[in-house]
Amino acid sequence: RVDGPRLWSTILETAAFGATPAGGLNRLTLSPEDGQVRDWFRDACVAAGLEVGVDALGTQFALRRGRDLSRPPIACGSHLDTQPTGGRFDGILGTLAGLEVMRALNDAGIETEAPLLVVNWTNEEGSRYAPAMMASAAYAGEFTTEDILGRRDAAGISVGEALDAIGYRGEEAVGARRIGRFVELHIEQGPILEAEGKTIGVVEGGQGIAWFDGTIMGFESHAGTTPMPRRRDALLGLAEIALAVEAVAEAHGPSAVATIGEAAIGAPSRNVVPGQVRFTLDLRDPASATLDAAEAEIRTRIDAIAGRRRLSVALTRIWRKEPVPFDPAVVGAVEAAAGALGLSHRRMVSGAGHDACNLAATVPTAMIFVPCRDGVSHNESESATQGDCTAGANVLLHTLLALANA
Amino acid sequence: RVDGPRLWSTILETAAFGATPAGGLNRLTLSPEDGQVRDWFRDACVAAGLEVGVDALGTQFALRRGRDLSRPPIACGSHLDTQPTGGRFDGILGTLAGLEVMRALNDAGIETEAPLLVVNWTNEEGSRYAPAMMASAAYAGEFTTEDILGRRDAAGISVGEALDAIGYRGEEAVGARRIGRFVELHIEQGPILEAEGKTIGVVEGGQGIAWFDGTIMGFESHAGTTPMPRRRDALLGLAEIALAVEAVAEAHGPSAVATIGEAAIGAPSRNVVPGQVRFTLDLRDPASATLDAAEAEIRTRIDAIAGRRRLSVALTRIWRKEPVPFDPAVVGAVEAAAGALGLSHRRMVSGAGHDACNLAATVPTAMIFVPCRDGVSHNESESATQGDCTAGANVLLHTLLALANA
Ligand SMILES: NC(=O)NCCC(=O)O
Ligand SMILES: NC(=O)NCCC(=O)O
Repeated sequence: RVDGPRLWSTILETAAFGATPAGGLNRLTLSPEDGQVRDWFRDACVAAGLEVGVDALGTQFALRRGRDLSRPPIACGSHLDTQPTGGRFDGILGTLAGLEVMRALNDAGIETEAPLLVVNWTNEEGSRYAPAMMASAAYAGEFTTEDILGRRDAAGISVGEALDAIGYRGEEAVGARRIGRFVELHIEQGPILEAEGKTIGVVEGGQGIAWFDGTIMGFESHAGTTPMPRRRDALLGLAEIALAVEAVAEAHGPSAVATIGEAAIGAPSRNVVPGQVRFTLDLRDPASATLDAAEAEIRTRIDAIAGRRRLSVALTRIWRKEPVPFDPAVVGAVEAAAGALGLSHRRMVSGAGHDACNLAATVPTAMIFVPCRDGVSHNESESATQGDCTAGANVLLHTLLALANA
Repeated sequence: RVDGPRLWSTILETAAFGATPAGGLNRLTLSPEDGQVRDWFRDACVAAGLEVGVDALGTQFALRRGRDLSRPPIACGSHLDTQPTGGRFDGILGTLAGLEVMRALNDAGIETEAPLLVVNWTNEEGSRYAPAMMASAAYAGEFTTEDILGRRDAAGISVGEALDAIGYRGEEAVGARRIGRFVELHIEQGPILEAEGKTIGVVEGGQGIAWFDGTIMGFESHAGTTPMPRRRDALLGLAEIALAVEAVAEAHGPSAVATIGEAAIGAPSRNVVPGQVRFTLDLRDPASATLDAAEAEIRTRIDAIAGRRRLSVALTRIWRKEPVPFDPAVVGAVEAAAGALGLSHRRMVSGAGHDACNLAATVPTAMIFVPCRDGVSHNESESATQGDCTAGANVLLHTLLALANA
């Protein structure tokens, strides 16, 4: 068994890096605060006797040797970066539970057949740099390292520059590190487990995600002198588009969700009719065909809005992640561990994207979910109980042991 | 007659200060670029033999002595600040035409009975600091100097600090400078003169203006895991509010106009349902009662939207400027000058706010409008012809002469 109070205290300890007044975290990927928590994580792993390496995109790997050095390690982990108004558990639980599993095995003097690995993936959140789960996608061969190093944040700082700024451009080639199996523990970030009173979600896969960048071009004009019918107001265009996006998601409900998370007027001024608006769109569904249909319907509605309001709207899909099925054997190992521990559990699909969804392309993978309060995540009030975190870490421990000794 | 080509060349010359790549101006009040054009204006006035003073809010006064020193000066002028995506004529025409009138009188060796005065009012645009026409309102006693000096821009810089940064916190007490009459030349910023093929607008008054600051509070949550019905999306609240504001303005059309010119998500992130949005609202109508009715209707609709979407919305009126009638005698002087010069003209009400609207509270005041292309203003493509600018400056010259020699 893991040491639940010790796991809990590492969660509280690292919550100092990027703490917000409202009790959450603002620890955007590759920020100074992310650098601080990375340093903490490296030191804690070294103190636990692990061998720590860093790849060219900053991902940290901490290895615990096994008896059979020829076997690829059985890996766990998640991420330590957060949203700008993020919580204390999203990603953090899975990474620190990985550390706790290693500490617990050390305490019990247990040596595994295959080596074990704890990973802290760079930029899982996707808030500062798109796409989300950037480094694990590069690990799985979906993007080249060069491509990712050149991506820029809103301030124009590239991933490469941000890595150098915190000293985390590592030496390992991205994708070179061998991984035999991958198991990620995470809070559910949704309401299902809590509503059903279940402790463990056995995650069978992740839903599909499409990300878009949009621009609405209207015409700036005087707020006091431009008659309403003459206006080409880009913000009113956004207003109609936002409501159309909501309507399309609802029409494909309850599975589909769609969100305009960023929207900004070009040169905002109180007495200027907005002439330009940039926005983002996040569209998800477990079925690939539904993603296609919803995108097509959104485009049709946008065209109608643009025509009626004499605006020009461009919508570019910058990322699409197909729905991902996890490996049945690893999913089965998670389910068996939960059962053996006597924990209530159910199978489910992840609404959020996770590094596990990228790993699944090349490594047999599964995930473990635990409930979070009110299903809330990406919010400073995000919360999970110590008991559920401990339960999830124990399922992780037993799943890793089963896979490493198989 | 004024020297039209000379006026035109000063407009082009000063368009270097804050020039944008798209051919417009970004010369926010009290910015370094505003400091540059102020220095240029002071030097040009001194070179024309005028006595230049600056008040405690940075407003520049350039005096041309008359025969009767006991009479208060007959004043003209406007402003040299612009919107962030502003044009080359809004405010600039009226200020530089004032200078041109002085130069033309010098060339013709004409001395007036009353002195003449050209004014460059600080912060007419209201984009960096609210409200618009700030310094002329303080001149007219609507705000105290202390109040205005303490107002802050979005970066937290106060008016006092911004004045000091460009060296324009002057020695004159605000309101101390005597003004006998005030006549402001300006581009119409609307489509009426152009549509009717008229050269001169004889402005009888300005419509009412109300400015508001709004905040929408929802709840941040995960874009991938939060079912649509559980969301409290502040941006969707803004979307409905923006469309409601448009509908209310249209219902009071064609006179009423309403604009959300600024809107920003609190901590924007692609995969976070927006939890907070701040916005501004600009509402105008020539009738005070319509302003009241439209505000009440907007508030009722906002309450309904907030209730339905489980949002909390605060809307604070930060400024209200009642409709302003100009002085019939000064309006008549403008009309007579236009007639005497053989220029086509019509009476009209200003859709934009102007420093003249503030002066009118304490000084007999009127305005002269000239057409602008497509009625467009607060846009980098704002344009007026040399011929119309010259015509407007000639009406200004003859109006000032008539008032100064009366
Ligand atoms: N788990 C998580 O919140 N990942 C961020 C990527 C996403 O938006 O799903
Ligand atoms: N003339 C002008 O554009 N003034 C700015 C204040 C307003 O919004 O009317």
